[in-house]
Formats: sequence, C-alpha cells, structure tokens
Amino acid sequence: MIRTLRRVLFGAPLATERSAEERVGVLGGLAVFASDGLSSVAYGPEEILLILVAAGAAGLGYTVPVALAIALVIGLVATSYRQTVMEYPSGGGAYVVARDNLGTMAAHVAGAALLTDYVLTVAVSVAAGVAAVTSAWPTLFEHRVAIAVACVFLIMLINLRGVRESAAVFALPVYSFIVLTLGLVSVGLWKNLQGTLLPVPHVQSATGATQALTTFLLLRAFSSGCASVTGIEAVANGVQVFRKPEGRNAAAVLGILAVLLATMVVGVAYLAHAMGVTPVERETVVSQIGRVVFGQNLWYFLLQLATAFILILAANTSFAGFPRLAAFMAEDGYLPRQMMNLGDRLVYQNGIIILAGLAAALIVAFGGEVSRLIPLYAVGVFTAFTASQAGMVVHWLRKGTGRHRAVVNGIGALATAVVTIVIATTKFVLGAWIVCIVIPVLMLTFRAINRHYRYVASRLTLERASEVRPRRNLVLLLVGGMHRGTLEALEYVKTLGAPVRAVHVEVGGEARPRIQRLWDRWEKSIPLIVLPSPYRNVTQPLLRYIQQVRREEGYDIVTVVLPEFVVDHWWESLLHNHSALWLQVLLSQVPGVAVLNMRYKL
Amino acid sequence: MIRTLRRVLFGAPLATERSAEERVGVLGGLAVFASDGLSSVAYGPEEILLILVAAGAAGLGYTVPVALAIALVIGLVATSYRQTVMEYPSGGGAYVVARDNLGTMAAHVAGAALLTDYVLTVAVSVAAGVAAVTSAWPTLFEHRVAIAVACVFLIMLINLRGVRESAAVFALPVYSFIVLTLGLVSVGLWKNLQGTLLPVPHVQSATGATQALTTFLLLRAFSSGCASVTGIEAVANGVQVFRKPEGRNAAAVLGILAVLLATMVVGVAYLAHAMGVTPVERETVVSQIGRVVFGQNLWYFLLQLATAFILILAANTSFAGFPRLAAFMAEDGYLPRQMMNLGDRLVYQNGIIILAGLAAALIVAFGGEVSRLIPLYAVGVFTAFTASQAGMVVHWLRKGTGRHRAVVNGIGALATAVVTIVIATTKFVLGAWIVCIVIPVLMLTFRAINRHYRYVASRLTLERASEVRPRRNLVLLLVGGMHRGTLEALEYVKTLGAPVRAVHVEVGGEARPRIQRLWDRWEKSIPLIVLPSPYRNVTQPLLRYIQQVRREEGYDIVTVVLPEFVVDHWWESLLHNHSALWLQVLLSQVPGVAVLNMRYKL
Repeated sequence: MIRTLRRVLFGAPLATERSAEERVGVLGGLAVFASDGLSSVAYGPEEILLILVAAGAAGLGYTVPVALAIALVIGLVATSYRQTVMEYPSGGGAYVVARDNLGTMAAHVAGAALLTDYVLTVAVSVAAGVAAVTSAWPTLFEHRVAIAVACVFLIMLINLRGVRESAAVFALPVYSFIVLTLGLVSVGLWKNLQGTLLPVPHVQSATGATQALTTFLLLRAFSSGCASVTGIEAVANGVQVFRKPEGRNAAAVLGILAVLLATMVVGVAYLAHAMGVTPVERETVVSQIGRVVFGQNLWYFLLQLATAFILILAANTSFAGFPRLAAFMAEDGYLPRQMMNLGDRLVYQNGIIILAGLAAALIVAFGGEVSRLIPLYAVGVFTAFTASQAGMVVHWLRKGTGRHRAVVNGIGALATAVVTIVIATTKFVLGAWIVCIVIPVLMLTFRAINRHYRYVASRLTLERASEVRPRRNLVLLLVGGMHRGTLEALEYVKTLGAPVRAVHVEVGGEARPRIQRLWDRWEKSIPLIVLPSPYRNVTQPLLRYIQQVRREEGYDIVTVVLPEFVVDHWWESLLHNHSALWLQVLLSQVPGVAVLNMRYKL
Repeated sequence: MIRTLRRVLFGAPLATERSAEERVGVLGGLAVFASDGLSSVAYGPEEILLILVAAGAAGLGYTVPVALAIALVIGLVATSYRQTVMEYPSGGGAYVVARDNLGTMAAHVAGAALLTDYVLTVAVSVAAGVAAVTSAWPTLFEHRVAIAVACVFLIMLINLRGVRESAAVFALPVYSFIVLTLGLVSVGLWKNLQGTLLPVPHVQSATGATQALTTFLLLRAFSSGCASVTGIEAVANGVQVFRKPEGRNAAAVLGILAVLLATMVVGVAYLAHAMGVTPVERETVVSQIGRVVFGQNLWYFLLQLATAFILILAANTSFAGFPRLAAFMAEDGYLPRQMMNLGDRLVYQNGIIILAGLAAALIVAFGGEVSRLIPLYAVGVFTAFTASQAGMVVHWLRKGTGRHRAVVNGIGALATAVVTIVIATTKFVLGAWIVCIVIPVLMLTFRAINRHYRYVASRLTLERASEVRPRRNLVLLLVGGMHRGTLEALEYVKTLGAPVRAVHVEVGGEARPRIQRLWDRWEKSIPLIVLPSPYRNVTQPLLRYIQQVRREEGYDIVTVVLPEFVVDHWWESLLHNHSALWLQVLLSQVPGVAVLNMRYKL
C-alpha cells in the first residue's frame, strides 16, 4: 500500500543508468535555474523603496540610481560566473571552487553561506509569491502563512519526483512571467513617452521624511536591493544537470538571465519612480504598477498569477541546489552521509525534505513577511560569491594561462566582497546577525562531522588488518521449551560448526525442570544449561552467563540464537510473548554478542 | 532512568520465591476483598429509591421490604460461597468451579460474565466514590469525569506495586467506613427511637407518582439494589491470597462481610424511609442522611470521605480479581498468554493495566453517572453466581459425601438464577442488552484464542519430531566495503562451519568495482559475489539471490550475516545509514532466512 502511494506521488523508480537522461538544455535550464533570479524583480525594487521612503521624496529620488548600481553588480557577477561554469562543467559552484583553490576553511565558509542562503531563498520567494496573490485577492491575506507552508511542501513533492519533470512543470510560469514583466515595462515606458502614464491613485497619506538622506540609508537600500542578485550561484552549482556541452549551456543561461534580470529591475524601479509608487503593507509595488499600467483587467491578474507562480517556483532553484550541495559536502565527509542517498527517482530526497522543513519553519517564525526575512538574506550569497570568485582568481593564476580572466574574476571578487561588507554592516541589527551566528556554527558542525568520519575511517582502514585475530565463537541456543521447533533449531545450529550449548532460563523456580528430563531423552550431543531466574527475568541471567563464558572460558564472541515461530495472521501474533524480539533489542547493545534470529513457520 | 522511575513508582523487584510471603490474614483479607461489597451500601439503597420514587410515596413505602429481600439474597449467596471457598482453597471462584464440574461452556459463561463485571465494578465504584465527594464539595461536580479517571489510574499504580502493600493502604479507609456507617445507622436508629430524628430538609418539589406501582417496578427496584450483592465472588476468586488455612480464613471474611453488608443495606434503607429521603442529582442519599443524623460537622465530612475512599478503593477488589482470573483463563489457553506474566512485583501487570483502561473508557462513555452504569451491572455477577453454585451442586453429588451441602448450594443456585432472569428482564432496555451482547462475543473470542493455541501446540508437538530433517545452511556475509570491519566479520563467519559466501550489492553501477580487486587481494577462501542493483536498492537483489540459491542449489535455509559497527555516542549514529537495521527488519519477514546481527566496536 505504501509502495502504491509512493508510485502515485513520486512515479516509478528510475534505474541509475538513466541518470544521464535526466538533463536539461538552455531553455529547460532557464526554466529550472532562472526563476530565482528573475522572480526577485517582484520584491527587489520594493525593498529599495521601503528603505528610501524613510527619507521622503528626496529618498525616493534615488530609486533609479540604486537600481542601476544593482544592475551593475548583476553584470559583474554574471560575467565572473560565466568563466566559472565554463571551467567547472562538472558543477559545484562556490563550494567546489573555494575547496579546490582556497582550501577547506574557505570551502566551509562558502558551503555554510550557501546552505543558509538556499533556505532563505525558499522562505523569501514563497512569502513574496503569496504576497503577490494576496495583493490581487486581499481576502487571502489572513491565511498567508498557511498558504506559504503548503506551497513549500508542494514544491517538495514536485522535486521528489525528479528534475526533468521539474523543468516541464516550471517552463510555463517562468516564460509567462518573462513575457508579462517585459510587457509591463514596455507598456509603461510607452505610456510614459506618450505622457499618458497616470500616477498610482492610493498614495499613502504622508510621504514625509522620518530619517535623513544619509549615505548609510542609500547603502542600506542598495543592500536590500541586492536580494535581486541572488540566483546566479544556483546555475553554477547545477552545471552537471545541463546537457552537453554543460559549460556552454550553463554560460548561455547565465548570460540570458543577467540581461533579463537587469532590464526588469531597472525597468520596474524606473516605473515605480515615474508613477510615484510608495510601498504599502497589503499590496506589492509590482501590483500597484500593474493595476495602473494594464488597468484592472485580465492582463493585470495574469501578471499577478505569473509573479506568484514564478516566485513560489523560484524556491525550486534552491530545491535543485541545496540537496546537490549537501550531497557534495557529504561526499567530502562534512555532512551526514545520508545526504548522498539517491532516491527511487534519482534525486537526493533527504536534502529536499530537510530544506522544505527548515524553510517552512522560517516562514512560520517570521510570520511570512518578506521585509522581515530580507535582512537575513543576501549576506550568505554574497559571502559565497566572494569565496567563489576569489577561488577563480587563484585558479587562473595557478593555471598560468588566461591572466585577463583572473582580472575579470578579481574585479568580481572585489565588488562582491565590498557588497558583502556593506550588507552585513547595514543590516546587522535588522537580522543579519542571525546569519553571522549560523554560518560559524555550521562550520563547527562540518568539522565535528568530518572528525567523526575520519575517526571511523582510521579504525576501519585495512592498515589495521594486523589487529584482526581469529575468533573463538560460542553458539548459545536459547530454548524456551522442548518442542518440535526446538528440534528444528537444533538441526539448524548443528549446521554451524562452532561449539554449541543450549540455554534455558528457568523462570518457574523449579530446581530440575521438566525440560531437563525431556532434553536428556531427545538430544545427546548438545548440552543444556539451565539458568535460574529468581526475578522472572530472562535477560539478566543470560547476560551474566555470557559474561562468565567470555571471561572464564576465553570466548571472544558469543552468538545467541533466538528461535521464533511465525504465525499465519497478524492478530495471532498478539497472542504470543515476543520475548525473542525484546531479547534481540537488549542483546544487540552488549559488546561481544552476535544475535541470530531464526524463524520457522509452524 | 526508566529503571529508577520504575523503582520509585513500583518498588524494587521481588523474587519468585517470595510469592508465598505476599499473603493476607482475615483482617487484611477484609480490607482487600470487602471494600467492593461494603461500599455498595453507598449506592445500592439509593438505586432502590430511584426506581421506587417513580411510583411516589406508595412506591417509597416498599424501600425496606426490597432491602430485606436483598439482605436475604446476600445471606444465601454468602452461605453458598462459604462452602465453595472451603472446598477450593486454591481459589478460582465461579470460573474454576464451573470448569471443573460443568465443563468448558459453563466455564466460558462464568468467565465472560466475571470479566465484564470486574470492569463494571471499577467504573461504578469509582463513579459513586466521586459522587460522595461532590455531594460534600459541590464545586467539584463539574470535574467528576476527570477525577474518576485519575482515581482509576491511581488504583492501577497502587496495584502494580503488589497486593500486600494494597492491604496496608486499604485497611484504614475500609475500617473507618465500617465504623462510621455502623455509627450512622446506630445514631439514626437511636434518634428515631427517641423521636428526635428530623426529616431531610430539602425534599424535592414533587414526589407525585409518574408510574403505577406494579410488580415489574418492584422487581426493577430489587434488581437495582442487587448491585449491593456483588463483591462476594472476588473473595472466592482470591482464596489463594489468604494465609493458611486459606479456606477457613476466606470463609471467615465471607461471613463477616455478609453480616456487615446486610446490616448496612437494611439500616440505610430504613433511615432513608424514616426520614423521607428522595434521590436528587447532585447529592447522594447517604450524604442527605448523614447531614441530618450527624449534623453538618466533622463526623459528616469524615463519613463522606470514608465513603469516597472505600468506594474508590472498592475498585481494588476488581484489581485483585480481574488479573488473577485473566491469568487463570490464560493458563487454560482462553486468553492471551501475556496475561500470565508476573511482573517485577509479583503481580499480573497486564491484567491490571487492561482493567484500568477499560474501566476508564466506560466512565468517560457514561459521563461518570452511577445510575446510567447500574443497568449494565449485576447481570454478569449473578450469571457467574449461578454457574458457580450449580457447579458446586454437581461437585457434591459426584463426591457422594455432603448431600446437605448440595442442598445449600442448590438453593443458592436457584435463587441466583431467578435473580439473574429478573435483572436481565427488568433492565434489558436500560442497558443490560449491552452485557447480553458482550458475554457471547467474549465467549467466541475465548474459543478462537484456544483454537489458535491448540493449533500451535499441535504443530510444535514432539510427536512431529520425525518431520524434522537435517538442514543445509548457506551463510551469506553482506559486505558494504573492504575495510577492517569486513576482515573481522570474515574471521567471525569462519568460526561457523557452514559454507560461506560474501555478497556485495553494487549500487554505484560499476561493472567490476574496486571492492572486487581488494577482495581478491585480501581473501582467498571465501568467494565474493557482486550483485548489480540498477535501482540503488540493497534488498531486492539480495532477496532475488537468496531465492535463487534456495531454489537452484537446494539450501533449506540461508543465514544472512549483517556486520555493523557501533559508534561511541548517540549523535554519531545519526551520521550513518543504518542499512543493516532496515535489512534486518525486511529480511526477518522472509521465510527460510535467518538473520545474524554482528556488531563490532570501532
């Protein structure tokens, strides 16, 4: 039944050899990996406005310059990363690049930063997607946390089915969003040129300045907008999902993504400024623009729907990236090995499930509000950018060829390092401090896990083969009573060449119980040892006997054979004591004891 | 930690040989077994009034005659049972007597009736005890169900500690109740003789008749009052708990119990009539009488407290009887064998726990109302009385001696048979029908359980020893990788004389994996079989290989050795896959497979 349910939810199992088939081209790759970057258009410009509005109209005047600065960062990062994906067609992103070129420490920084960021991407994207829906249908505003959590688990299910089907699922909303957003920007600009672009009607009562227009405020607005730069890393981390030539395909996706993203961010920011939009709690900036540019018609609702879809699916980027990175790191021995398990559908299901759980927890903890989550965001990803590009610089220098490439990556590294510091500083008290704690804690965890695996490996290495000595093994057959099943068990243990004794724990209190007489009649070669049990407990006398045998007779290991009969129906098993099961659980804790469970049908 | 908790709650384990010490004399026996019978004074007379009041003052005029009829039944049953306990000093009550003299069918009737009745005794007694408390402290009335359920589990805990300590716990309330109730009756009668006995003040508004005073109504009142006769059976069932001479001590307790009980029932009924008491919802009859006879002083509150205590503890009678009867029936193969397990404290803990669970469920289902539970009550116990005494008649007739004893038991059997029919008839629609369904269902269950045990016994009998043939056993060592642990496992399996093969399930998809090369270098005698696994599943290829080996090579049994290493701390086990555990669970379902769990410390 569970198997049937799994088939319906996740599809039939896929063979390992089909692994190579599950790949995407440029168009598929754009659908899978671009949603994160593109969707950030929905909240990036809004977060800029949210900061600038504190300085009133003077502040809002800087909307477009800040957006242009962000477009510049997008361009730098994308250019820099195009070099990375061409050079690392097997994928790995910041973690692999940092590991290979800068060493373990930098790799851990990058890994911890990326893992944190993937979780935040899911939380922020889904929360923003729900905000797009509640902008168009305000009655849903009350249920936004529940809707967001449900979306996270829906994406989880889709991803547990496998990545190829993900591309199929996500292509429609991604391309709809691209068309509708470019349409919004184009129509808006056209109307602006024509002079027919109206200002947004419900301007908030007061746009009076509450803060001075300082450099710090501008930097904070820039930091908020940098949320739009995230998503590029995921392409680099997922290069191996692309069809051959992987590097070229990935670079193409990166280029397209950067151009689209920069255009949209600047376009939306320009329209927001031109139309005098100010951020309000219950409606997003894009929704306000759309309502005026398109009018409240089908196009507007399609825009909101596509925005919601791409945002909620943007989380999918992380569902592709997080499990793959976790598997990489598990392979290196820094995360639990279970992260490497490939499920029936050739996906790393453990990573997918853990990501969904963490993101859902985050959404609940922050009440599903994008602007409360934003300060935690982007610190991680820019840290990773820096590590990755610094790694590339070292890579090119070591390689000797392509010095101009080292310069490109060097500029990228410098720019993202500066951005990282700006974000961490301007957002520290607003929530970035949480990430500044989580990353070091994660790094310590990686080290502890690695220490354990190295210890296990050192104990298991074949170099210690000389420590392995021949064993003396005593087989103890546990006998409950003298019946046919016991005879079957006796025939069984006789097939094992080791010395065998039968053991009966006498809980009834008889000195020479009936079983002894029967035994002497039926079995000549194997001796029966009767252990008294004054407290009616089977385990204690048995354990004491095992210890005694090991100590006094020099056996290295004692194999306890637990015969058990199998009943035909489940309800019949309620009528039996299952002492074998209990014994098995207890004995398996005892060093030097092997437990043999022998079941016979009646 | 669990062990410490158990010690604190239940005390240190007791040795089996101390079994004989855990016994009670006449005074202790009265405390343990009399509480059920005596406490019924608290609700028996009230239930009579509750029926008679429907016929108004004319009906209430019959209170004392009905009480006298019940006293007569008490006398008959007790006299009859005194003969039983003298003849059956090893205990067993109705079930054993019916089984020995009337056969299995009658024994099953008696057993089913008694088990039902024990559960009802707990529910009714505890509910009535809580009613006594809420009469004196009306604010607790709202919480009566929760209080009652808590009491049930408290009694359960006390009984899990053992029966001797029960006697110590229960002596004070039982003897207090005897003194206070006899005091109440004496003072009341004295005041009545003096003419100073006042009528109860809050007479209910109308005592107008709503029903005619028919014979049926009188019989129904009598049936309700018969709840007071229960409790005698428990003494007979528990004879073996008495000190030697068991029969004499038990008979003494029975005699004292009957005299006290009859006196109290008639006394309370007389006072209720003399004082014009009518039953009300929120105060018991005994409370109404006590408030007037004693006045609202310390004695009144002590009476209510003692009543509450004895009632709640009356349930203890069932906690002594039910588990013992269940163990008897389990020994005969009619109930699951687990009912025979003697716990650390020499009590049948499974029976105790099941009884508490059922009684608590009943209290919740009937909202903790005594008068809703009463119609279910007493059908069972009078059925058992009849079976028991009819059995004694057969016993005396077979024995030849003591024909006059056969007459005594014969009168008892006849009387209780008539009462059984009266109760079942007059209470059928009010709830007795439930018991009339439960008893046959239980009887069918006994038969099904017995059929299973007989089947198991027939399959396990030594007469089938000729079917047991020597076995061919193949040992398969499951190998995950080539490391020191594998070498240890190899040394271990070499101590077993059976043919051994090593098996590696190749989930990576390599044709000739690295392990094969290493194996050929390290191990010469045992062959390594590599099983491909296209779906990355370890179980399926292994199962297919096992089936193939059994079918093609004629092995009867395959022993799969699962080596597993043990980590030092619990958190480390999170870092490993536990495939051995999963395999063990899955393989243990497969016929012809024995699973050997071999653990090695790092």
